Amino acid sequence: MENINVTVWNEYRHEKSEEHIRAIYPDGIHNAIKSYLDTVPGLTVRTATLDEPENGLPQEVVDSTDVMLWWGHMAHGEVKDEVVDRVWRRVQQGMGLIVLHSGHASKIFQRITGTRSYDLKWREDGDKERLWVIDHSHPIVQGIGDYIELEHEEVYGETFEIPTPDELIFISWFEGGEVFRSGLTYKRGSGKIFYFRPGHESVPTYHNEKVLKVIENAIFWAAPTVYPKYGTGYVRPLEKVGGKEIK
Amino acid sequence: MENINVTVWNEYRHEKSEEHIRAIYPDGIHNAIKSYLDTVPGLTVRTATLDEPENGLPQEVVDSTDVMLWWGHMAHGEVKDEVVDRVWRRVQQGMGLIVLHSGHASKIFQRITGTRSYDLKWREDGDKERLWVIDHSHPIVQGIGDYIELEHEEVYGETFEIPTPDELIFISWFEGGEVFRSGLTYKRGSGKIFYFRPGHESVPTYHNEKVLKVIENAIFWAAPTVYPKYGTGYVRPLEKVGGKEIK
Amino acid sequence: MENINVTVWNEYRHEKSEEHIRAIYPDGIHNAIKSYLDTVPGLTVRTATLDEPENGLPQEVVDSTDVMLWWGHMAHGEVKDEVVDRVWRRVQQGMGLIVLHSGHASKIFQRITGTRSYDLKWREDGDKERLWVIDHSHPIVQGIGDYIELEHEEVYGETFEIPTPDELIFISWFEGGEVFRSGLTYKRGSGKIFYFRPGHESVPTYHNEKVLKVIENAIFWAAPTVYPKYGTGYVRPLEKVGGKEIK
Amino acid sequence: MENINVTVWNEYRHEKSEEHIRAIYPDGIHNAIKSYLDTVPGLTVRTATLDEPENGLPQEVVDSTDVMLWWGHMAHGEVKDEVVDRVWRRVQQGMGLIVLHSGHASKIFQRITGTRSYDLKWREDGDKERLWVIDHSHPIVQGIGDYIELEHEEVYGETFEIPTPDELIFISWFEGGEVFRSGLTYKRGSGKIFYFRPGHESVPTYHNEKVLKVIENAIFWAAPTVYPKYGTGYVRPLEKVGGKEIK
Repeated sequence: MENINVTVWNEYRHEKSEEHIRAIYPDGIHNAIKSYLDTVPGLTVRTATLDEPENGLPQEVVDSTDVMLWWGHMAHGEVKDEVVDRVWRRVQQGMGLIVLHSGHASKIFQRITGTRSYDLKWREDGDKERLWVIDHSHPIVQGIGDYIELEHEEVYGETFEIPTPDELIFISWFEGGEVFRSGLTYKRGSGKIFYFRPGHESVPTYHNEKVLKVIENAIFWAAPTVYPKYGTGYVRPLEKVGGKEIK
Repeated sequence: MENINVTVWNEYRHEKSEEHIRAIYPDGIHNAIKSYLDTVPGLTVRTATLDEPENGLPQEVVDSTDVMLWWGHMAHGEVKDEVVDRVWRRVQQGMGLIVLHSGHASKIFQRITGTRSYDLKWREDGDKERLWVIDHSHPIVQGIGDYIELEHEEVYGETFEIPTPDELIFISWFEGGEVFRSGLTYKRGSGKIFYFRPGHESVPTYHNEKVLKVIENAIFWAAPTVYPKYGTGYVRPLEKVGGKEIK
Repeated sequence: MENINVTVWNEYRHEKSEEHIRAIYPDGIHNAIKSYLDTVPGLTVRTATLDEPENGLPQEVVDSTDVMLWWGHMAHGEVKDEVVDRVWRRVQQGMGLIVLHSGHASKIFQRITGTRSYDLKWREDGDKERLWVIDHSHPIVQGIGDYIELEHEEVYGETFEIPTPDELIFISWFEGGEVFRSGLTYKRGSGKIFYFRPGHESVPTYHNEKVLKVIENAIFWAAPTVYPKYGTGYVRPLEKVGGKEIK
Repeated sequence: MENINVTVWNEYRHEKSEEHIRAIYPDGIHNAIKSYLDTVPGLTVRTATLDEPENGLPQEVVDSTDVMLWWGHMAHGEVKDEVVDRVWRRVQQGMGLIVLHSGHASKIFQRITGTRSYDLKWREDGDKERLWVIDHSHPIVQGIGDYIELEHEEVYGETFEIPTPDELIFISWFEGGEVFRSGLTYKRGSGKIFYFRPGHESVPTYHNEKVLKVIENAIFWAAPTVYPKYGTGYVRPLEKVGGKEIK
């Protein structure tokens, strides 16, 4: 049985330019996530970053990806439009997409949501964040318990300008008084999308084991598999989704 | 143009049995709400309570109600099943229903949701509550601004066992660390339902002008009107919804 | 790895009282479905019928069922209320429920939907039915192609009085001019529900291999499993859903 | 009380280049619709077409439009991207958008849906179409009855690659065997969107009174009004939606 091919895309700028961020993620956020995912059976993990040729996402990389993770913040505008088109098209065909933290303002997430998804409240005061589980039976939260608590995080506050999500998985509470829809899902074409809020570059969120567990669960949830026969999941060839020829 | 006929139903037990609650609502929660609604043009308001004959809701009262408000807490089990059937059937025909606070555990709300909607976390420590507006363009929140703040309220915490709402209007933040989906809508048959969380009997929530404004807005939203022609709304005869005979 | 425990519940009246129906389902609709499911690896299948003690669904049977199928038509009212409560409660805890054809008017489906779900148009003229797939990437339709065609079926027509489904899987076209939402999903508590329209007692629908395949797929979709780790699904003990104690 | 400002946008090519189409819509589809809407109290109606400067939609026109109708077919690619951005941004601020027939494949509708919304089955055999009402209590279908029947229309068939709509209003039945989700709503930002399928250029659909009534109803539904106080609706200044400053 083949593995799920995961590509972790990261803007990878903060970690190179800022000492205190490099201290947390010496090899970049993408490698912090990859090093965890490498320990999970069933996954084959690559990374890609903004400053590589074609933003690290040439056609053959996108076409061989089952689930893509996306972290961006300061340079959304530098992602090439043809790369966004390529990723978006692959999502329609069934690739899973997991958008992390400030990736909410990326070109690809706006393309998915059809809204000004960058529009929300925010402040950087190192508040405590508590992410409450809204649906305990959802595959993405298995093993998480009632909530995830992060000692310090950037604050995002409602209103977050997005369409009503298909499923609301987490709502965040922040020490200073805000709330935020922190885990939500959409479906576009044959692709499943999960947005997961935490992960500011200046805090060690991607070293938190519950956060990493959610990302792991989300990859299995978003993978373009036929719903596994009891114990026998397999990747669906994307050329054919169900009975439908992909154009 | 006829008025919207509103019936405010209240269990009306706490206010009779507990001094400190009677101090806040001397004539009962129902009359506190009614006295505000009586000042709103376009509404004709009645009240009904548990200990009246047929729980205050004989057939002719239900059949002449356009929007019903429901507050209950300690005596959900005493509401007669035939009364619940009567209210439920009227909702299917197009009556609006606004369920307040602990009404989440009422027979009628469980009948609407199809879940164990009583199942949530709660504590009474007088926390501050902040209800954040999730959809600023929704009719129910017009005039409210970014949030409603209540100095002291009972705490409800997720997970609230309900179906995914059609619309999520408010999310509450509580001082002690919980969050809650505090304003949400459903549609059942031709009837629109709004659940609104705040309103514990021991705090003066129904004297808060923003809370009362939300209730007022929700009544106009839930009323079984044909969507008003620009400036010419009217109550739809419930015997006929659109082209469909009501059985 | 344990099997999924399936209980196929059938009213089992038509087959006993009407010759031409017995000719199609000599051992009842339940056994026609069971005989197919017995060939599917990973399933342990039982049947239960209305005229057995406790309608065939004593507590221990319900408590050991992962996915229940429900076919009823002429005797919905004879299902005991405590049995309906038992099944409903198990759904909240995570049991999958697959409601077939005229089961739309059953007590359990009304309890799930909160509507007059019996309310729809119908006629018995043996029209051709074509069930179009609305979401080709959904697990329930894998292997089905663009549509299922049934030479003769009872006609159901909109408007079907149900809440907006979470997912719309099939829409039926009928020769005589009607359409119907024929495959739809809901979630209630931790339980997944699938309604599947075809299956009138007077036609051999449950001998159609695509119809049986949909039922098979729906069982794996609705089973209370943690989303299978890539190739390693397992049944979740219902006592504990995610981090949440079931009350 | 101000009127709702409606702008009817039409590609306006078929009517100029094809005799048999000009015979049906001598002044273009936009003017056929406008001439009906001009008879409706409360509306101020303009038209705009592709070949006018800035595709007929300069900033001041878009900024003074409350509800826009969109009909396009053969020249979607000729609509300028900055015009699409302008319309999309206005939708986020609260402008209603009604997308007609082959407008499903327009840049603006793809931007709204986030999918390959051009992807569906189609054929031109002049089939009879019957559009069934799915929600009789929805404002958009008031006065329509159970269905709209069109003697001849172009056929669209599922699967239509769109996100699950917020509301499903019509499902079409076609003589030749297809079905289609023909009336559906979305919300993006503060804007309400309605897609309405019928309206091929070669048939007199926009002379059908029920079709025109649906368009009229949809305009009142989509208008960026505060939900009308009982009989006193008014247009909301788009600079301020609820308590939220529009950026």
